[in-house]
Formats: sequence, structure tokens, C-alpha cells
Amino acid sequence: MKQLLIAVIGTNEGSARMKKTAFELGREIARRGHYLVCGGMGGVMQESCRGAKSVGGTTIGILPGKTKGDANPYIDIPIVTAMSHARNAVIVRTGDAVVAVGGRYGTLSEIGLALCMNKPVYGLNTWKIPGIKRKASPRAALDAIERRLPLSQNLRTSPA
Amino acid sequence: MKQLLIAVIGTNEGSARMKKTAFELGREIARRGHYLVCGGMGGVMQESCRGAKSVGGTTIGILPGKTKGDANPYIDIPIVTAMSHARNAVIVRTGDAVVAVGGRYGTLSEIGLALCMNKPVYGLNTWKIPGIKRKASPRAALDAIERRLPLSQNLRTSPA
Amino acid sequence: MKQLLIAVIGTNEGSARMKKTAFELGREIARRGHYLVCGGMGGVMQESCRGAKSVGGTTIGILPGKTKGDANPYIDIPIVTAMSHARNAVIVRTGDAVVAVGGRYGTLSEIGLALCMNKPVYGLNTWKIPGIKRKASPRAALDAIERRLPLSQNLRTSPA
Amino acid sequence: MKQLLIAVIGTNEGSARMKKTAFELGREIARRGHYLVCGGMGGVMQESCRGAKSVGGTTIGILPGKTKGDANPYIDIPIVTAMSHARNAVIVRTGDAVVAVGGRYGTLSEIGLALCMNKPVYGLNTWKIPGIKRKASPRAALDAIERRLPLSQNLRTSPA
Repeated sequence: MKQLLIAVIGTNEGSARMKKTAFELGREIARRGHYLVCGGMGGVMQESCRGAKSVGGTTIGILPGKTKGDANPYIDIPIVTAMSHARNAVIVRTGDAVVAVGGRYGTLSEIGLALCMNKPVYGLNTWKIPGIKRKASPRAALDAIERRLPLSQNLRTSPA
Repeated sequence: MKQLLIAVIGTNEGSARMKKTAFELGREIARRGHYLVCGGMGGVMQESCRGAKSVGGTTIGILPGKTKGDANPYIDIPIVTAMSHARNAVIVRTGDAVVAVGGRYGTLSEIGLALCMNKPVYGLNTWKIPGIKRKASPRAALDAIERRLPLSQNLRTSPA
Repeated sequence: MKQLLIAVIGTNEGSARMKKTAFELGREIARRGHYLVCGGMGGVMQESCRGAKSVGGTTIGILPGKTKGDANPYIDIPIVTAMSHARNAVIVRTGDAVVAVGGRYGTLSEIGLALCMNKPVYGLNTWKIPGIKRKASPRAALDAIERRLPLSQNLRTSPA
Repeated sequence: MKQLLIAVIGTNEGSARMKKTAFELGREIARRGHYLVCGGMGGVMQESCRGAKSVGGTTIGILPGKTKGDANPYIDIPIVTAMSHARNAVIVRTGDAVVAVGGRYGTLSEIGLALCMNKPVYGLNTWKIPGIKRKASPRAALDAIERRLPLSQNLRTSPA
């Protein structure tokens, strides 16, 4: 693949500051040509998608409910799971790397699941959990991800 | 949204004839600007994706296993569920419409799930189950889908 | 284990005749000392549980919704999945054998899933699908299950 | 229902001390007539089940893999999900209350999921997360659970 899938995790709400960070994170992901995957709902999730779309990126929402109508308006590809919080496991497993922005208990569960799966997890003002690589900015998080997961080693090769 | 998500369901294997139909179906979906979602594996799934990519389409694979490395090489966006056959429910719920090509028991389960969810289900040489709209060709299936689900009524609107 | 887990699949509604068959099936399962697992809701599911409880059996409901309050009143052990139809895969995988009573599309999906997983599937007035072993009565279905799955070969051994 | 379903969460491994606590917790749950639900695997999960069975309790294992053969030998009722870590959401949603014993990242994810769902979560030497009610002993945890969830208010009523 020519790009990574980067999971953005964060709450359905989120402070103004968290939302600003989320917007910048989404924009940075898309600017570098990666795809953004998230839970598809509002708050931090929506702002990261809005950031990605502001530079023409691609956004995927793994939705908890039964209809794609639940997705925030910046989701390109709504995946409709109808499996409530169990979908958290799908979000982080789909990501090549995971970035947490702030967050409450849902985000905590996703951090736990991602670390269980040995996914690299980066944190921007999020829970203090051993194993999270804390970063000062979206740019720093993306720099670290690209160092750790160079595209030249991305095992799946697509003819696309 | 400017396009529909069309779920293609069919077996991991499939006869030469089924695979040819699947290729044509994927090509027809993509030619009309829609996205193709499937189980992401081989056989009918792979051929439909190959068809879609032959005209520059977008393909999404809802994978049963734990790694995106399982996806067929024509999948653009691998969704890694690690939930085995339970992911069948996610494939059909994500599709605005479902097209079955041939198929064995997995396909039968997806037909049952889709009809449970009141999704329109079209069949190309597949199981004879009441509720499936049988069509003679991929083109006829897509014509019927577009008549039933005009984009002007596609409720989600995306700024993208 | 000293008993089998037998999955009963059938619709949330069901005719009077189907419900009578379901009651007898549940009673027969429990009378022979086996556990009954089902989707936990009404109709055929509820009647099979009522039959099992009429002779002191044990019933397990794999529920689609978010609360155990959805379970029918004859469920001893409600498993709360909150994953809608995706839970159909859990019902049939949990059963050592599957018995279908009548049924509509949900039941069809469970038949497909069970046959995918190579589970033995027995049918009482249900869908005509190759691979289903059709039986004339609950007793005949249980006789066939016990011949196929003798407890002496039930691999898990529990100290209980 | 005449009893609660109490979810025990903890690692597949666990120190000798953690396992001793888990054994005592399982025994205390069963002694008071409640059912124990857990992930069904080894370590803390197995010891809690062993404790419950030592006094004739009932144990339910929500398994991540594809076969009931994965269950620890003290599981009475193996629920076979084949959905890997996504089953963590089912464990905590099935519990009326959740007790964490020690634990690593999987346990952390279950704590996050349970708090998301507004389940009461009790901790015995586990992660320090706001919202967990920390207790000094299994007995203290059970006392707190029974104060919070008196059986007289347990909404589901079963004829059993």
C-alpha cells in the first residue's frame, strides 16, 4: 500500500483545545498521504475527519450503530457495525498505528485494546498509561509513526 | 454521498464462470462511480475487486482474520475485524445494496442477514431464496439498484 | 462435560404449531440433561426455553441488545452482546449441534453460519437447504445428535 | 433473577498473589449464590473459576477463540465468540458488576469498556483509574456490590 491507515481515537465530545489538536492531526495524516480511520462519530473524531478532508484526505468511520446516517459529515467510508463498543476493537486493529487525543473511558478501552494487540500507540494529552508514546504535537506523532512504519516495509502490496 | 456502497457477497473459491461474473460486477460498480465492499478474501471477492480496480474504483474489504495481510491484492481499504464469520453482518449492513454471486454457506448466511436488515438483495446465479431479486447480468443488477436507491435520495450528505 | 450445549434457532414470532414444536424440543433437550442455548428473545426461542425450564433445564440466551431485560423470562443466563445480528454467529458457534425450528431470515442466516462452521444442523419444518438433516420430531433430532456426539467423546472435561 | 452475574476481569497470567485473590473472589461470588462470568481463559480467570467451583458455583466463559476446548477446566458454560478481543465488551456488558484483579492491557480495556457502559467497577490491586472503586478484599468488593445491586431490585424476574 502506498499509505498507512492511522487510527485516531478520542471522545465524542472534547474541549476546544482537544478539537483543535484533532483537526491538526487529521490534516497532518492526510497531508502525508495516509488514510484516517476512527469511530466515525462527533467531537474529536469529527474534528480529525474535518482536518483530513480540509486537504483532500480519505476518512473511514467504524460506526457503533445500525445506520450510516450516524456518521459525522466528514466520513467518506462509513462501516456500519451495529456492535456498539465492541467496534472499538475493530478501529484499533484496522489502524497500523493509533493516536489518542484526550479522551475518556471509550478512549481508554481503545488504548488497552491497541496495546494488547501490540499496536504502536501515540498520545496527545491523553491518559497516562505505560506503553503510550507521548508526543507534543500531531507533527511529532506522525514523524514517529513514519520512522517506525516506513512504507517500504508495508507488507501488503496493492496493484492500485 | 456521491456514491453508493455496494456489497458483493460470494465464496472464497468460485467457478471460472462465477469469477467472470464477479469481475464484470466489480467493473460495473466502479464504472458507475460506486464503492465496492466485500469480505476481502479470494475467489469471487477477489475477482470483483480486480474488476473494480481495472477501471480505477475503490474497494473495501471487511476481513475475518487478525491482519490486513489476509486481504486480496485488490483491496484498497482493509478493515481488520478479527471476528471470523460475525463480520458477515458488518459487510451486508455496510452495503446500501447487496449483490450475491453464486456462493456457498457463507453467502447464504449473508443473504439471510441482509434480508433480516431489509437490505435490497440482488442475485446472479445464487441461492434460490424468496426475497432475492434475481438478475441476468451485473448491468441489470446495477440498473435495478440505481432505480431503487437514487443518489438524490441518499440521505447522508458529505462535504467531500 | 457431562452435557452438550444445543443451539435452538427460530424466529421471534412463530406459528402455534412451531411454538409447540419448540416447547417439546426444549423439554427434550433438558430431559436428556443438555443445556439449551438460543438468541434469548421471544417466539420459538421463548417456547423452547419454557419447555426446558418445565423440566428444570438450563437455558442460555445470547442477546442482540444492550440489556438483559430483553431476555425472555425463561432464560437463566443472559449473555448481553449488544451486537445485533452479529450475535447469530456466537449462538451457533456455542452450540455443539444446532436445531432449527421453522424460521425466517434470521434463522436462515444462522443455518448458513452453522454449516460454514461444520456444525451438525438438524431441521424441524425449516428452510430446505442442502446440509440440513431434516427430522420429524424433537425426539428424533435429539436421538441423531446423541448418536453423532456421544458424551464419551466430548473433549472438554470439567471437574464440575 | 435470584442471583447476580459478576464479571471477573484479569490477566491470562497473574502472580501467585493475584491468583490467590482471584481464587478467593470466585469462592466469595459463588458462596453468596451469584454466577461468575469471565473471559474463560487461564491465570486470574482460571483461578476465579476454580474458587467458584470449590463451593459448587456456576461459571461462564466468554471465549475469544473458535472452540470451547480453549476454556479453562473450571468453566461450566463456554460461550464461543471467535471474535478475539471484541469479546471483552461482551464480558463486561454481561456482568451486573465488574471486579478487576490485577491485570494488564486486556484488563485495562475491559475497565474502560465497563466504565463506558456505566457498570459499577471494583478493583483489587488493579489499574489506578478514576471511577474504579478500590477494595481491600474480595469480601469487601462483594459487600459493596450487594449494597449497590440488591436482588430485590434486580429487574429481570425469572420463573426459575
